[in-house]
Amino acid sequence: MTVPPEQHARESELADRVERSFDACPDPRLKTIMTALVRHLHDLIREVRLTEHEWVQAIDFLTRCGHITDDKRQEFILLSDVLGSSMQTVTVNDHTRGDATEATVFGPFFVAGSPEIPLGGDIAFGAAGEPCWVEGTVTGAAGEIIPNARVEVWEADEDGLYDVQYGDDRSAGRARLVTADDGQYSFWGLTPTPYPIPHDGPVGQLLDAVGRSPMRASHLHFRVSHPGYRTLVTHIFVRGDPMLDSDAVFGVKPSLVKDFMRQPIGTPTPDGRIIAGRTWSRTRFDIVLTPTGA
Amino acid sequence: MTVPPEQHARESELADRVERSFDACPDPRLKTIMTALVRHLHDLIREVRLTEHEWVQAIDFLTRCGHITDDKRQEFILLSDVLGSSMQTVTVNDHTRGDATEATVFGPFFVAGSPEIPLGGDIAFGAAGEPCWVEGTVTGAAGEIIPNARVEVWEADEDGLYDVQYGDDRSAGRARLVTADDGQYSFWGLTPTPYPIPHDGPVGQLLDAVGRSPMRASHLHFRVSHPGYRTLVTHIFVRGDPMLDSDAVFGVKPSLVKDFMRQPIGTPTPDGRIIAGRTWSRTRFDIVLTPTGA
Repeated sequence: MTVPPEQHARESELADRVERSFDACPDPRLKTIMTALVRHLHDLIREVRLTEHEWVQAIDFLTRCGHITDDKRQEFILLSDVLGSSMQTVTVNDHTRGDATEATVFGPFFVAGSPEIPLGGDIAFGAAGEPCWVEGTVTGAAGEIIPNARVEVWEADEDGLYDVQYGDDRSAGRARLVTADDGQYSFWGLTPTPYPIPHDGPVGQLLDAVGRSPMRASHLHFRVSHPGYRTLVTHIFVRGDPMLDSDAVFGVKPSLVKDFMRQPIGTPTPDGRIIAGRTWSRTRFDIVLTPTGA
Repeated sequence: MTVPPEQHARESELADRVERSFDACPDPRLKTIMTALVRHLHDLIREVRLTEHEWVQAIDFLTRCGHITDDKRQEFILLSDVLGSSMQTVTVNDHTRGDATEATVFGPFFVAGSPEIPLGGDIAFGAAGEPCWVEGTVTGAAGEIIPNARVEVWEADEDGLYDVQYGDDRSAGRARLVTADDGQYSFWGLTPTPYPIPHDGPVGQLLDAVGRSPMRASHLHFRVSHPGYRTLVTHIFVRGDPMLDSDAVFGVKPSLVKDFMRQPIGTPTPDGRIIAGRTWSRTRFDIVLTPTGA
């Protein structure tokens, strides 16, 4: 769209005036962010020639996001997720290099203080799904073993729901453990299954309007921390999952896609657990942390 | 900040992937807006190298804006206002050219169905302030008189509050009237005074953090409509007001700044009204509407 020079000047003058309003900002970092925000916001409005009706729709959309958000539901995080801005923030801050394990989105379902389990313990606590043996090591970028690293894991059940989505006080499908002296960890989880992000609100309506699926590729969340290393927040994904190329929140990285090997009924388990009359799966995820300051 | 080429490529790949997720959007206009939004959002995050902590702060800020918003308070409009995006939207859509009266921001305090008053009537309905005689004509762009044009006016009282901010059901400081056969209108209002936008919420905290004032330049709102013409939403501002150069919402345009002439105590009024023991003021605002389709 061609904008006459006089109109262009009028719009530029306004954008410049708004930018200059942050000249006296005492916090240089906040000033940088706000002026960049204003520049992009005004460029966006001018580029698309936003109508006043569309502006009203945007205000209404944000208002509805605000009103559906409470201590259990975070629609603004969902919005950031489906616009790829959560993943872009992760990417900008992902200092992993070389063989270090890549990060991905945190998501809204982490709960601090999940139950402690021993090595080889079960995180299900009643969550339904196919049992999945997960094992691996935690090492540093130079190959050094990291004993006593904190491993926190969480995932949805086979119905695609996290414990906190049930609206009761259950804690299920999440736990924390620490690595052994040789840096190894293992636990029983559930084979991850695809599930939709909460899509009964404004973000779901947006996805619907743009013809996008709310489905996330099957995954299992990890948060791994140890003093002296950057805390790693990541997932592992299931190789072959149909949603790998269309993950609703753009969280998939090729290095995080793992083989989850389904075991026939009756296959002996690594720890002697008896799993009667059903399949189970196993996967391996070796984690490499980046030292702080690297 | 220099971003290594490999990291740059990683970030670009993600931004491109998110843009492509709108490829199947069935609504071309929505696709245009969403892809432009995503491009600017990702550019912003990458340019400022947004930290994860800053991302959390942004989510928290939007959440607080959502929670303070109700049917009386609209924090997202305030946010759009103080970022100049409301005014930029008005500017992009302001088709006035030549002598037509310029538009400015609508603001959150319009109420449909305000009381009807005759020509020369009083809009105060008990709102406190110095009386102000306002008069003018409504004409079209070719100079044609527009009789029977709808003129809606609203303003804050001398304490800087609109009626709707008192939390009772009062209607004060607002009214509507129609122009006479010769296109003239007149009414008694209040001399506008500066007032802060609501600044006890997250937007007020933001203004405080960036060292900006929440004050608006003194003004009187107009909405003028007639079939066959574009509805004009604008203000008039008081020449000499100290906030003209730092209006919190960037609404001031030079053409909208008017002389409000203070009259000494005892000066006879245009309509013979007796104003005992206090000053009053007068101003003139001739309004030129743009025909629909121009």
